[in-house]
Formats: sequence, C-alpha cells, structure tokens
Amino acid sequence: MGEAPACFDCVAIVGPGLIGASMGMALRERGMARRVVGIGRRRSSLDKALQVGAIDEATLVMEEGVRGADLIVLATPIGSFAQLAGQIADAAPRNALLTDVASSKAQVIRTVSSALADRRDIAYVPTHPMAGGEQSGPLAAAADLFEDAICIITPAGTSGEEPQARLQMMWEGFGARVVKMSPEEHDRTVARISHVPHLAASALVAFLHDADMEVCGRGLVDTTRVASGSPDMWIDICGSNAREIARALAEFATVMEQMRKQIECGDYAGLRVTLARAKEKRDRLVQSRRPDPGGRPL
Amino acid sequence: MGEAPACFDCVAIVGPGLIGASMGMALRERGMARRVVGIGRRRSSLDKALQVGAIDEATLVMEEGVRGADLIVLATPIGSFAQLAGQIADAAPRNALLTDVASSKAQVIRTVSSALADRRDIAYVPTHPMAGGEQSGPLAAAADLFEDAICIITPAGTSGEEPQARLQMMWEGFGARVVKMSPEEHDRTVARISHVPHLAASALVAFLHDADMEVCGRGLVDTTRVASGSPDMWIDICGSNAREIARALAEFATVMEQMRKQIECGDYAGLRVTLARAKEKRDRLVQSRRPDPGGRPL
Repeated sequence: MGEAPACFDCVAIVGPGLIGASMGMALRERGMARRVVGIGRRRSSLDKALQVGAIDEATLVMEEGVRGADLIVLATPIGSFAQLAGQIADAAPRNALLTDVASSKAQVIRTVSSALADRRDIAYVPTHPMAGGEQSGPLAAAADLFEDAICIITPAGTSGEEPQARLQMMWEGFGARVVKMSPEEHDRTVARISHVPHLAASALVAFLHDADMEVCGRGLVDTTRVASGSPDMWIDICGSNAREIARALAEFATVMEQMRKQIECGDYAGLRVTLARAKEKRDRLVQSRRPDPGGRPL
Repeated sequence: MGEAPACFDCVAIVGPGLIGASMGMALRERGMARRVVGIGRRRSSLDKALQVGAIDEATLVMEEGVRGADLIVLATPIGSFAQLAGQIADAAPRNALLTDVASSKAQVIRTVSSALADRRDIAYVPTHPMAGGEQSGPLAAAADLFEDAICIITPAGTSGEEPQARLQMMWEGFGARVVKMSPEEHDRTVARISHVPHLAASALVAFLHDADMEVCGRGLVDTTRVASGSPDMWIDICGSNAREIARALAEFATVMEQMRKQIECGDYAGLRVTLARAKEKRDRLVQSRRPDPGGRPL
C-alpha cells in the first residue's frame, strides 16, 4: 500500500468489536493515528482489544475516552446509538469529527444528528464499511479486514467536504474502495445486497428439517455463513432499515415465486433465462471484485 | 487414508466431467481400479480428462468403452440418461455394476431402470455424491473432491446388498461418508439442502439492480457461489425433481414471508426467534462437519 498519511492525533473507538478493533489495528499498524482509545461497557472486551493491539488505552467512561479525540468512531450495535450519541454530544472535544459504521443509514443518521443538535461544531460523517462476517468481537479483528472492501460514505446534513475527505482518506488508507451515496440510496441498495441475502441465508437454515442436518454438504454450510451472525445485531439492522428491507424481501419473493411457478408448470425455457441471467451477473461480479491488473486494488 | 482396497478391474466413466473425472482420478491414485476408460461425446473433453490423469483410455463409442467394464459410471447431465442407459443396456458386459451420480433420484431411477428392463443381470446402484461446486469439466476435477463429502446411496429395485456394499466401499475409499435413504426421501431432502439453496442464490443475484453491482461486497459473491453453476445442468435437475423442489420452494417462501411480515409489523421478538434458531442450527452444522478428533473423517 505504500505509507499511509498520519490522519489523526487521537482516535476514540466506541465499541472496539470486530469492526472497531479492526479499525484500531489498521490505524495503529499503518501509523495513521498517534493514539487509539477504546471505550466499552465491559472490561473483558476492552482487555481483548488491548491484547490484539487494536487500542493503546481503554476506558469504561465516555467522558474520559473522548478527551482529546479528533476522531470518534461509533462502532456499537445500532440500538445503543441514541444513548451513546447523547454522551458523545456532552463530552466530545470542540470540532471533533464523528463517524459511525452502522449497516443502515437514514434512521441512524436521524438518531445521531438529533443527539448532536446542540453541537454544530461536531462534523458527523456516516460510513458503512462492507466487511466482516459472522464472527464478532475484538479477537476476530484484523488490520487487513478492509483491504479491497467497499466503504460507503453517506453524507449527512452536518458533513462538510473537508471532514468527508479526511474519512475517505482514512478508508482508502485501510485499502478500501470508497463509494458515496445518499443515505436513502444506501439503505435501498444494502437491503438488496446485504440485508435480504442475510435473511435468506437464515431462512435456508431455519426451514431445514432435523433429519436434513445429517446430510448437509459443505456447500450449504459455506453459502449460509452469514446466518451464524449475531441475531441481536441483525434485529437492530432490520429495525433500522425496516421499510427498505420489507420492500426488497417482497421483490425477492416475486423472483422466487416466479421460479416456483416455472418449475410447477414445466416452463424450463423461462427458468433457464433467469438462471442464465443470474450466472452472467454473478460472473461479472466475480470479475469486478478481482484486483485490477494494474495493481490498484479495486 | 491408508491403502484402499482394489475394488474394480475396469471402470468405464460415461461423461468424465467434474464428478466423473474426479472419480477417475481418485480410483487411479488410490489404486482402486486396474483401468479407467472415459466415454464422451467430444474428443476435446476426453483429451482433458486424459491430460489430468482421470482416465487411462478414451473413446467416443459406448460399445468400445464399456467392453470389459465391471463398473460403469453414468456421470453425464440427467437429460441424456434415457439415451445413454439404453446404449449401456445394449453394450454392457454380463453382470456389470452400473451407478449414476445424478443430483435427483426417483425419476432418474425410473428412467434408467426402464432402459435396463431386459438386462436383469446388471446391478444398478444409484448414488449422489454431494460434492463439486460451480465449476465444471475435467480441468476442475480433483482426486480429493470427495474427501469428507457425503455420498447418498438410494437403493433401486435391482440393487442387491453386495453391489451396494461394493459401491459403499468405493465411496468410503474416496474419503466420503455414505448415507443410505430411499429415492423419495433423497429427493425431498436434497430439494431442501441443495436445490432450493441453489435457486435462492440465483434469485439473490437475479433481483440485484444494475447499480447494486458496483457496491457488492465479497460476502454476496461468496454466498452466491452456486449461482455460477451451469444453467443447463440445473434445468435438468429442476426438471427431474420438480414436485419436491416446488414443494420446498413453497416452504421456503413461507419462512421468508413470515420474516417480511415480522419486519413490516415490527415484531422483532418473533424475528429474533427465527434468527436465533437459524444461528443455532448452522453452528451445529459447522460443528458436525468438522473432522472427528479421533481422526476418522466424518
């Protein structure tokens, strides 16, 4: 990657779990922050983040943790955002930059922006790094988690150009490809590319009969990987993007129902069109995820 | 694995593609057949099978290929079974053992058994090795493809105990775990654990909007791997297991629709139950797929 710019003096990571701790590791290993502080609810979890080298210091107290921070990262489950953003509004240094890494955006942005109503000095830049898997916690973190990943920045009302540019530089420093879109476009898109696929994986496992478990091949274990993700985290995500997820689920159901009818009626020419189009699309997807031959990671 | 028993004198593999050629490689590398002959429609494909060491000899002519074979493996797409089983009935040596490796069974067994009506001497043992992925052809073959995989044997009318035991010994020699069930139970089970997951993966890709493709993470690429499988092969599979697939698709749609309603109505306690049950089931699945600590592959 070459050397990354030293973006920040002190970064406070609220909730150094899989994503937060991976950010801490990436910041520290690449010399992009002079100091990284972890803020959490449980000492045991913070100790793990210290142990894997994700943070320099740890505290259970928001006020202590954000002292002197020029970047604050909100990396907890969405359900705690209202409360934590309120604490951040009370304690954050003047002109701090605030970001979050939640998987849904429009409602999250309303929640955080509302908590920040009296802190116009804080620049809030919402992001969504599309990385991580079914694992969680700092012990699953990795400094290279974001390499070749996509990070979506969804500018909120308070994000100016300069704070966005700093965040973009940080994510590109981690090896991610940054894409900007509106919070609404993000939520619609991510419902299709992430939330519905997750629910489908869970449904594919949920609808198995007990006797099926004996004969499941590795294929199903692989393709339902995300179904082992934390139910609580996914409840939060579904709750905060309910409308778009419900809409995308209905679209998905239409495609599945069409397939069922085609099979029931023996319309294999029609089914073949759907399967061939899916294959062509996925092959294109695999192609586009390959590193650029010129050497720049996509 | 230790040394495997030399099961067969001459094995004829009709259609040495991914599965057929992997069987040839496993038979030859483990010394389980004295000679392996590939029978195919295209010289170029047979040349590849020769090149990767899957077969000793190749021919385009069924009659030549099965001469002297004590095991004949039908490993072509299901759509060609009626014709090829007829050719096998005409040309197979007395008392030959015939097996197939198709992903659906009840209808396949009817087709093959009907072609063999005048050849009561041929023992037909249908099998379904649950291995392979979205790739196809002999160049994707591997001698270890079946290690730790599950192979389902679905006894047909003509399979006696001894032919079944020989096939079971062969698959166990390849490192697979053999499970026996009736063709009907197989088709119901495999509709849920393989056919519907495949169609769901295709639907997840098919329902993406073009703009979504730009921001798809590696997660979706991984979990939709099977959607890059051959549409023709999957049309054959759907056609030969239509009733069970349509039924399983309806069951799957019920689970998905329940999730959609729960999200629409804000019933997150209900959704949590589904997600938690799915996680618990999948975690159990991952556990059961691990090699036994005692050393015997599951």
